[in-house]
Amino acid sequence: MSKQPVHIARRDLDDCRVPLVNEPLSAGQAERLAPSFKALGDPVRLRLLSLIASHAGGEVCVCDLTDAFDLTAPTISHHLKVLKETGLVSAERRGTWVYYRARPEALGLLSTVLAVPQEAAA
Amino acid sequence: MSKQPVHIARRDLDDCRVPLVNEPLSAGQAERLAPSFKALGDPVRLRLLSLIASHAGGEVCVCDLTDAFDLTAPTISHHLKVLKETGLVSAERRGTWVYYRARPEALGLLSTVLAVPQEAAA
Repeated sequence: MSKQPVHIARRDLDDCRVPLVNEPLSAGQAERLAPSFKALGDPVRLRLLSLIASHAGGEVCVCDLTDAFDLTAPTISHHLKVLKETGLVSAERRGTWVYYRARPEALGLLSTVLAVPQEAAA
Repeated sequence: MSKQPVHIARRDLDDCRVPLVNEPLSAGQAERLAPSFKALGDPVRLRLLSLIASHAGGEVCVCDLTDAFDLTAPTISHHLKVLKETGLVSAERRGTWVYYRARPEALGLLSTVLAVPQEAAA
């Protein structure tokens, strides 16, 4: 088994780091952003992401994630793959297990897209 | 035709206003948040939302939204309904047309859920 980090499918989102309340998204920006929001549009994936992102040390073994849900390992693996393919988490295989980390730059970008002026959010 | 504001299906998200990097989401929180992210997981809905949210005056007639896309009016209406049902926009019928507004408190809440400490987002 490879010890290389699992490669992350990255889409270029650099030009999307603008609140959508500021100006209309282009069709291209919307096409590139939508898969990330779609990945978050599932309760199991949201919980997986928050378990990974909030974990002390920033890293979680897939073995610990599987234990946290009443779901089969292949189902958890499928959801983790979706999170990885959209760049929301990264994964590294070490020995038997794969270890997951949240990618704060990806979360931060999506947070920025949805940001509103503070006085409007109250 | 009614002149009453179209009622918005609201889910109680008040207890979800916490960054998911801070602590794991509960199953209940994830269930309530996921539909909003799913609504954003479509490029047409993202563009519609940004067109509405960034519009001068904060309000857009459905007639102007339909003109901005190479899609049929029923398709646009379907996407607007999804945005409305998740509370991301509000709608008000006045005479012939329905007028849409973004709901900044809903956008702000989702932005907060995805927020990361500034030094981590670079």
